Amino acid sequence: MAHPLSAMEFDLGHAIEVLERTPAAVHALLGGLSEPWVSGTEGPDTFSPFDVVGHLIDGEETDWMPRARIILALGPDPRFEPYDRFRHRKRNVDRTMSSLLAELTRLRSDNLTELRGWRLGPAELGLPGTHPTLGPVTLRQLLAAWVVHDLEHVAQAARVMAKQYTAEVGPWVPFLPVLTDHPVPRS
Amino acid sequence: MAHPLSAMEFDLGHAIEVLERTPAAVHALLGGLSEPWVSGTEGPDTFSPFDVVGHLIDGEETDWMPRARIILALGPDPRFEPYDRFRHRKRNVDRTMSSLLAELTRLRSDNLTELRGWRLGPAELGLPGTHPTLGPVTLRQLLAAWVVHDLEHVAQAARVMAKQYTAEVGPWVPFLPVLTDHPVPRS
Repeated sequence: MAHPLSAMEFDLGHAIEVLERTPAAVHALLGGLSEPWVSGTEGPDTFSPFDVVGHLIDGEETDWMPRARIILALGPDPRFEPYDRFRHRKRNVDRTMSSLLAELTRLRSDNLTELRGWRLGPAELGLPGTHPTLGPVTLRQLLAAWVVHDLEHVAQAARVMAKQYTAEVGPWVPFLPVLTDHPVPRS
Repeated sequence: MAHPLSAMEFDLGHAIEVLERTPAAVHALLGGLSEPWVSGTEGPDTFSPFDVVGHLIDGEETDWMPRARIILALGPDPRFEPYDRFRHRKRNVDRTMSSLLAELTRLRSDNLTELRGWRLGPAELGLPGTHPTLGPVTLRQLLAAWVVHDLEHVAQAARVMAKQYTAEVGPWVPFLPVLTDHPVPRS
C-alpha cells in the first residue's frame, strides 16, 4: 500500500477527538433515513448501515474498553476474549435505527468518561495484551485500532449506501470509485 | 464488482434524504478536529479532509446544479462545462475548515431549495444532457451521481483519517481493511 506522506503518531487527545465524534457523525449520516438506505448491503454476509451501528455498539460492550481493562488489570495472562463480529444480528432483531443510534451515543460517552478517567501516560500506553489471533499488542495499538475501526465503519456505511445507486448513475461509474471499492466485500 | 443484492431504484425523495444530510455528517465528522486530522492525505495529489470539503463546495457551485440547469434549459446543445477537480486548491488557501463547513451547509441548503422547487417528475428526470467526457446522460443519472459523489467523499474523509494511524495499529492492519483500501489512491 502507499503510506501517507506524514502519518500521525498516536496521541490520546487526537484519538479521543475521533472517538467522541463518531456517534454524532453516524447519527447525522444515518438518522431518519428511509428503510432501503438503512437495510441495503454489499451482498451476503456484509453489513447494512443498520448492522454497522449494531457492530459499533458491540464494540463498545465487548471489544475495545473490555480489552483495555484486561491490559490495565496487569494480570498474569492479559489475553483478550474472542470477539463476535455478528453478535449484533441476534441482539438487534427488534430494534430501530433510531434506538441503536441513541444507545451508541450513550455507550460511547460512558466509555470515554472511563477512558479519560484513567489519565493514561506513556507507561500505561506501552502495557501489553494478547489478542486471540494477532498475538502481542500494546494498549496504544488497541486504542489506535479503535479509532481506525470507527473510521472504517463510517466509510463502510457511506460506501454501502453509495452502492445502492450503482445501476442508477449510468455512465458515471468509472468517475465514482466508491462504487467499485471492495469488489469482494469485506465487512 | 459484486452488485448489491437488492439495489435501489432512483427516487428523488430518497436522493434528497442523502443530499440534505451530507453537510451535517461532514460537520460532525470533521468540525473542530486538530490540524493533523484535517490536513493528512493518502499521498501526493490526493485529498485531505480539508480538500474534501472544498471539493464538495466546488460541486455545489460548478457541478451538479449548474449541470441540472443546463439540462432543464432545454437548449439545442445541453453540453456540460468541464469540471475542475482542483479548483478548491487555490480558492481556499486562506480558509479554515470551520468556514468551509459553514459555506457548504449554506450552498447545499440553497441548492436543495431550488431542486425541490423544480418539482421534477419522470419526464424531467429523463431529459438528456451531454457530459464532456462520458457523453449522453439523463437528469436522473446526474442526480444519482450527486448522491453517490457525496457518499464517496464522506467515505474518503474517513478513510484518509484512518490511514494516518496505519503505523500505529501494529498487528491490527489485516483486520482493518480501510487501511489497505485504495493502494493506488484515487481522489
